Amino acid sequence: MNVEFINPFINATINVLSTMGGVNPKPQKPHLKNGNRSYGEVTGIIGLAGKEAKGSFAVSFSRGCIEKIVSNMLGEDIQDLEQDIIDAVGEITNMISGGARAELENKGYSFEMAIPSIVSGKDHKIVHITDFPVIVVPFDTDDGPFFVEACLKCEK
Amino acid sequence: MNVEFINPFINATINVLSTMGGVNPKPQKPHLKNGNRSYGEVTGIIGLAGKEAKGSFAVSFSRGCIEKIVSNMLGEDIQDLEQDIIDAVGEITNMISGGARAELENKGYSFEMAIPSIVSGKDHKIVHITDFPVIVVPFDTDDGPFFVEACLKCEK
Repeated sequence: MNVEFINPFINATINVLSTMGGVNPKPQKPHLKNGNRSYGEVTGIIGLAGKEAKGSFAVSFSRGCIEKIVSNMLGEDIQDLEQDIIDAVGEITNMISGGARAELENKGYSFEMAIPSIVSGKDHKIVHITDFPVIVVPFDTDDGPFFVEACLKCEK
Repeated sequence: MNVEFINPFINATINVLSTMGGVNPKPQKPHLKNGNRSYGEVTGIIGLAGKEAKGSFAVSFSRGCIEKIVSNMLGEDIQDLEQDIIDAVGEITNMISGGARAELENKGYSFEMAIPSIVSGKDHKIVHITDFPVIVVPFDTDDGPFFVEACLKCEK
């Protein structure tokens, strides 16, 4: 996976989380995922599949960060925090991958998006099964970090 | 999701795990997924995406069951059990969803497969974000249960 493919995910992440999530995400230096370690406590994951490209996108939030985002999104309306976090992470996962998809389509790589799944648990580990490198981009916010992982395997 | 869509996943599961995994999986009564509970300790999950259908497939193994399958697949060759389990669950997830995909294509529903991701952790929870029901099929084996979850949203 080269830089041409990760930048659309970084751009969409900043765009979605600053406009919708009300936080100011600062991207840190990307690195290759090494080992199975999960980064956050709650992770949204979505499959990307097409004839030319297939892969996986994940966004993993620390507890403090996602609680702040949910509070920004819902204000006083939080009814059931755990359910609201799941719904918010699902929506954020869809919107980031949708934004990246639109930018990648302009570059000639088209794929469809599967439905997002949310994984939670303090010690969960996620491994993407691919012989392509998985790129991790850490982001800082005032309320804690979150992490974007993307892997895209292009056939052409 | 109607029965027409779950049967290809059940058929492919029995086929792959009896021929490749060397176990004799007995399907139990399917039910709708209710709540976030994860079923096994290690789960393979893969996104399914196309213009006509999108969804998610997961297979979640109890520890005893996946250890037996890995032992059947590798014999004396186990080098690193945790890594071998991850590799085996990735391969099984690909093969089951590939088998179901072929059967569904014959019925007129085509989709591409994303890359599988493996989630592990004793208390991990997985929620598929969809307004469609998620069907869970428990399977018994002599070495412990495993669980298939599928959700497929068809546009036509």
